[in-house]
Amino acid sequence: MREVAVIGAGMHRYGVMADKSLVEMGTVAVARALEDANLSWEDIETVYCGTAQGGFANGHQICNAMGLTGLGITNVENASASGSAAFREAVLAVASGAHEIALAMGVDKFPPQPPKTTPRKPAQGPVLWFAELTRNHMAEHGTTIDQLAQVSVKSHYNASLNPYAHFQEAVTLQEVHEARMVADPLTVMHCCPRGSGAAAVVVCSKEVAAQYSEKVNPLVTASVLKSTLPGGDPSTDLTRFTAQIAYEKAGIKSQDLDLIELHDAFTIEEIMFLESLGLCERGQGGKLVEAGVTALDGEYPINSSGGLISVGHPIGPTGVGQIAEILWQMRRECGQRQVVKPVKTAMAHMVGAGGVSIVHLFKAE
Amino acid sequence: MREVAVIGAGMHRYGVMADKSLVEMGTVAVARALEDANLSWEDIETVYCGTAQGGFANGHQICNAMGLTGLGITNVENASASGSAAFREAVLAVASGAHEIALAMGVDKFPPQPPKTTPRKPAQGPVLWFAELTRNHMAEHGTTIDQLAQVSVKSHYNASLNPYAHFQEAVTLQEVHEARMVADPLTVMHCCPRGSGAAAVVVCSKEVAAQYSEKVNPLVTASVLKSTLPGGDPSTDLTRFTAQIAYEKAGIKSQDLDLIELHDAFTIEEIMFLESLGLCERGQGGKLVEAGVTALDGEYPINSSGGLISVGHPIGPTGVGQIAEILWQMRRECGQRQVVKPVKTAMAHMVGAGGVSIVHLFKAE
Repeated sequence: MREVAVIGAGMHRYGVMADKSLVEMGTVAVARALEDANLSWEDIETVYCGTAQGGFANGHQICNAMGLTGLGITNVENASASGSAAFREAVLAVASGAHEIALAMGVDKFPPQPPKTTPRKPAQGPVLWFAELTRNHMAEHGTTIDQLAQVSVKSHYNASLNPYAHFQEAVTLQEVHEARMVADPLTVMHCCPRGSGAAAVVVCSKEVAAQYSEKVNPLVTASVLKSTLPGGDPSTDLTRFTAQIAYEKAGIKSQDLDLIELHDAFTIEEIMFLESLGLCERGQGGKLVEAGVTALDGEYPINSSGGLISVGHPIGPTGVGQIAEILWQMRRECGQRQVVKPVKTAMAHMVGAGGVSIVHLFKAE
Repeated sequence: MREVAVIGAGMHRYGVMADKSLVEMGTVAVARALEDANLSWEDIETVYCGTAQGGFANGHQICNAMGLTGLGITNVENASASGSAAFREAVLAVASGAHEIALAMGVDKFPPQPPKTTPRKPAQGPVLWFAELTRNHMAEHGTTIDQLAQVSVKSHYNASLNPYAHFQEAVTLQEVHEARMVADPLTVMHCCPRGSGAAAVVVCSKEVAAQYSEKVNPLVTASVLKSTLPGGDPSTDLTRFTAQIAYEKAGIKSQDLDLIELHDAFTIEEIMFLESLGLCERGQGGKLVEAGVTALDGEYPINSSGGLISVGHPIGPTGVGQIAEILWQMRRECGQRQVVKPVKTAMAHMVGAGGVSIVHLFKAE
């Protein structure tokens, strides 16, 4: 299995984007990724497009708009982890030797069609479920609403420094507490928004990476996708299971991680996944957040991008955008939201409905 | 790049299947593929599911019903070639060394939702386009309506011997001519049906194949996906381009092929693709069909399964079902529809809307 490096990334801002088409967002992200990697469109041999909010041949539409070059395109769907799954296929395409240079993109347009005349009910299912998870965690482990709200405060602060984020304004604990209640105890500021956007990253074999980029080109040291688990919770336990395999593949411990971009569709997830990923004992995640351990200047910075809660969650792009953030953090190109400690080892983590956890580990050479 | 072998396949019959769920069809196909490969569900490390007619987490639904084992699942969409694309990812997963044993499935349920109350217009676009292609081929090359109808007669005959086919009755030239006219000169018997169904194949590294199966385990000698072409027709010229690369990778000539399963959504496609794949000069495809060259006892048997016109085209499964047919033909397990000549070298070919051509080549060891 050949070693694979990430050599460039590009994003289109996440958000409502009512006036932007899928193709417009996608081509902007791809063009920026090519520029970042010092490549031209003709250099890309194969493309994987993560997309999950509907539409047909989304990757093909974008590639056709970029220009007809004889490359191959495959669309990949894995719920919220669609972009992560697209990245994984791009890595396998290079690792196998089938291709030298591959591009993974994620793109989604929400809503894909104009709204129907019959008004939609809000999708309450996930919110009610996560509200219950939150109440249970509070009751069992003494996690406080301040600790939960602190996830949102940190997330919004990081996103306020990220030009691609859906939300770009810092908020206070009080503002999180006083926002519109969605499902007790979760106000709207505990929940990620839905939206549109695009992200793209370029991967190539380690051998040729230096030809294109003289910058830090992180190596992919583990790419683990797990979708079902015999027993256990399909989110936290599946994440624990997936991460453990990834740590073994990469030969690292959770404590080695300098940055984690993780799936925080709701504030409780950052706290629970801190535990599942092995950064603290079960039930202790809230205390880590409260102590500032997950902030940009903390010991284990989490979601320097802003995370799903504030950078946004356009679904297809989300997992690809995480990897863009890791690349730029490793290259120390993140300006005011730069993680303070050197970022040598990092993780991108997503989960998705239907059952999926994807963990990618990266090492800066 | 490790060599990859196909060691088992299973299908659920294609057809209207109004009373069968997606999960029911998918689990039947997967269970049969496992039995064919002498494997249990726990042996499968990763799954790719080709699906294109809608639905959410289709592969996950089927795998969850099969049992929670800790495997990974990714859904793949590439229009009509979705199943072929899923197979390609399974091959790359093994070729890269990331996995030893992978399963590619295709599944689709048509219509995915109950019909709306407003009546649908028939999807005339593709039919009109292929009717025009047909008229042009007839005018330019002297291709006759009898030659075109012969594709359908041969297709229905082969499918009449295939227990998984949508249509299982042989038809005569006269019946093809006298069927309901859809778009001049194409009667409905020149066109593939839409439908539902499922297909699955198991791949593993060449090294371990013999551990599981003492039968012929075809090697994948080329897996080429091309989605755009600078100039040229996105179907026939893209196929020519893709096939040429595949021939070079496998070190063969078109004349070496003992069996081709190709995309014949309309009769004209078998004739045009015979030309694009290099089995005859441009414009001469009709004469090959008329001479019986593409029949089960011909020099270049095409679509021994029945092809899209008669085995059916449930979209997600179609490309996977082609590979099942090639496996069973190479193993000489096809009973009355067994190709007469030994099948040592074979091709599976699909094209898809949005721009895609996928060619897989196989060699019986």
